[in-house]
Amino acid sequence: MSTSKPMDILNQAREKGVLIRLRGNRRMRGILKNYDIHLNLTLENAEEIGEGGAVKLGDVIVRGDNVIMISPPPK
Amino acid sequence: MSTSKPMDILNQAREKGVLIRLRGNRRMRGILKNYDIHLNLTLENAEEIGEGGAVKLGDVIVRGDNVIMISPPPK
Amino acid sequence: MSTSKPMDILNQAREKGVLIRLRGNRRMRGILKNYDIHLNLTLENAEEIGEGGAVKLGDVIVRGDNVIMISPPPK
Amino acid sequence: MSTSKPMDILNQAREKGVLIRLRGNRRMRGILKNYDIHLNLTLENAEEIGEGGAVKLGDVIVRGDNVIMISPPPK
Amino acid sequence: MSTSKPMDILNQAREKGVLIRLRGNRRMRGILKNYDIHLNLTLENAEEIGEGGAVKLGDVIVRGDNVIMISPPPK
Amino acid sequence: MSTSKPMDILNQAREKGVLIRLRGNRRMRGILKNYDIHLNLTLENAEEIGEGGAVKLGDVIVRGDNVIMISPPPK
Amino acid sequence: MSTSKPMDILNQAREKGVLIRLRGNRRMRGILKNYDIHLNLTLENAEEIGEGGAVKLGDVIVRGDNVIMISPPPK
Repeated sequence: MSTSKPMDILNQAREKGVLIRLRGNRRMRGILKNYDIHLNLTLENAEEIGEGGAVKLGDVIVRGDNVIMISPPPK
Repeated sequence: MSTSKPMDILNQAREKGVLIRLRGNRRMRGILKNYDIHLNLTLENAEEIGEGGAVKLGDVIVRGDNVIMISPPPK
Repeated sequence: MSTSKPMDILNQAREKGVLIRLRGNRRMRGILKNYDIHLNLTLENAEEIGEGGAVKLGDVIVRGDNVIMISPPPK
Repeated sequence: MSTSKPMDILNQAREKGVLIRLRGNRRMRGILKNYDIHLNLTLENAEEIGEGGAVKLGDVIVRGDNVIMISPPPK
Repeated sequence: MSTSKPMDILNQAREKGVLIRLRGNRRMRGILKNYDIHLNLTLENAEEIGEGGAVKLGDVIVRGDNVIMISPPPK
Repeated sequence: MSTSKPMDILNQAREKGVLIRLRGNRRMRGILKNYDIHLNLTLENAEEIGEGGAVKLGDVIVRGDNVIMISPPPK
Repeated sequence: MSTSKPMDILNQAREKGVLIRLRGNRRMRGILKNYDIHLNLTLENAEEIGEGGAVKLGDVIVRGDNVIMISPPPK
């Protein structure tokens, strides 16, 4: 195993838009401000994306154990 | 990874109103008094927000592993 | 983060009535005798509060990982 | 926090009848023989209590993470 | 708390038949060959007990976190 | 407790066919290549066994916390 | 137990296509870029595979505790 870690790509995603899938079929997007090894996240200008459109959440802290996957912005 | 942590923004949210989403489709709001790294929270003047309006809970301790996300107040 | 912890307010709630919400939509109340950092609790004169009224449980130990939130008595 | 722990009252319940609620709406009773800090329990003359009465289980070891609450016998 | 542990009675159950309840309403029986503190178990001549009778499984390793309770044979 | 562990019988099952039950009513079989104490497994020529027959999966790594039980081949 | 670990075969799967099954009946495929011992994964050109075809996800980080199994490419 190399010494780089799966979460290293989040480092390049800071201050950029990310898409997040949470348990319970929730999807969110926002500007990634901060993260830790548990995938606890801080997002700015976050929105929950549902069937009826996006709901603005502002700044949020997401507890990492609800996260299924995170997509950084395309390179 | 920087040395700041996702939960650091909760430090500025102390004594201010926060909105909390819990597992099981529960939403709460209240004045954030205290928190720890597990997102255990103490809230003052807490209310549960449901379809039929808000139910007053007074002071509460929320066990962190029920938390999905926390929104600090707008800056 | 200050050195006080969310659970510190439980220390003032000892020997007083608390209201507890458990996973699975259960609610209980009782006199808080003891607690630990996992929110394992000992209650005296505990009652389960359901739709049909309260069921007396006497003394109980509640395993902390079932706890969603605890309300100490109003100050 | 005092140095006594929520589980200390189980020490006085040894060799006495206890009532246990488990996840999945199960209830049991039996003579408490032993326990540990995870609430792993050994019961003697255990019975599962269901709608149709009690089913004898004899001696059982209960894995603690299934336990919701334990009621020691009335003082 | 005494220094004996709830699982100590499994030591006398080695090489004897035990009955096991698993999460998801499964029941098994078999000869207990080995166990550890997580209640990981090795059984010989194991059978799953369902509504339509017993299904032979032979030797099995059961991962402990699926275990609800274990009944050693009557003394 | 002896110093042998429940998983020791997996050591004799290496390079042999094993049957695995996973949470969510899944069953698999394959040649056991490797395992660790969490019951993370590597299987070769793995197949998922469903109602409509077996689906070939080739080599797979199974994350241990999905495992309910493992049956080594008959002795 | 040998010193090789179940996840070692992921090392040969780097930069190659892998198929992943997640909890909640989700399936994904993508180029494995990175992984750690929790099975946190980084995938490139990831796609979610559903009944109606594949949905492009681009780069993703998958939190390991959602993973059921991973299939490296055939040798």
